[in-house]
Amino acid sequence: MNRADVIPESHLDLLTRPLFGHFATIRPDGAAQVNPMWFLWDGENLKLTNTTTRRKYRNVSVNPRVALSVIDPTQPYRYLEVRGSVVRIDPDPEGAFFQVLADRYGMAMDGPVADAADRIVFVIRPDRVSAQ
Amino acid sequence: MNRADVIPESHLDLLTRPLFGHFATIRPDGAAQVNPMWFLWDGENLKLTNTTTRRKYRNVSVNPRVALSVIDPTQPYRYLEVRGSVVRIDPDPEGAFFQVLADRYGMAMDGPVADAADRIVFVIRPDRVSAQ
Repeated sequence: MNRADVIPESHLDLLTRPLFGHFATIRPDGAAQVNPMWFLWDGENLKLTNTTTRRKYRNVSVNPRVALSVIDPTQPYRYLEVRGSVVRIDPDPEGAFFQVLADRYGMAMDGPVADAADRIVFVIRPDRVSAQ
Repeated sequence: MNRADVIPESHLDLLTRPLFGHFATIRPDGAAQVNPMWFLWDGENLKLTNTTTRRKYRNVSVNPRVALSVIDPTQPYRYLEVRGSVVRIDPDPEGAFFQVLADRYGMAMDGPVADAADRIVFVIRPDRVSAQ
């Protein structure tokens, strides 16, 4: 199955524009957690940058089932929710993927990525969406 | 304990301004879900409107542990996450609380709340926050 088929064409712009996503994970004790995050949609998977020192990394290592909510800031009742699983956690030891996201979101970098050694990439396969 | 003490004064405006929250719940099968929602902070609890016909209602009925993420649209790296539990689900059979939120978010209503009979209020006690 082509994962891109999961995302409705009508709401694809919410993944391709540099909007903030709200990323839901489940903590090891079973509680919900949700945090704003940068993301990239590569046409097949969602990719997020994180580090091995964060709670979110521990959460998805224990329970890979996650969800991302994005609203259109110009039409806030227009939104997309993507539910899926973290299918891979890739190392990003040079911070190269972090830099891709920093560029996408217009964050000026004044040097190398400080925590590059701990940087990783969550690769999320979308399974279901809801949209309005 | 006064629950208001949980919310840092520095980020209280993110609850009192009519911003959209992204509400994370856990589905009965253990997957994460997250959706944009209206909310009200009454100084002690977060209150959200929902209906008994929605997935979110079923989710919180099975697992009351939820979280809400709010970013400042004018400074998107400024945010507040509130984690807590749905401690009460109140009926809202006249849609009175829905109307309070519609007013708060500037939604013009052209008549009575259509699904008032199914309307309920999630009352959420904050337990922990994260903020930046």
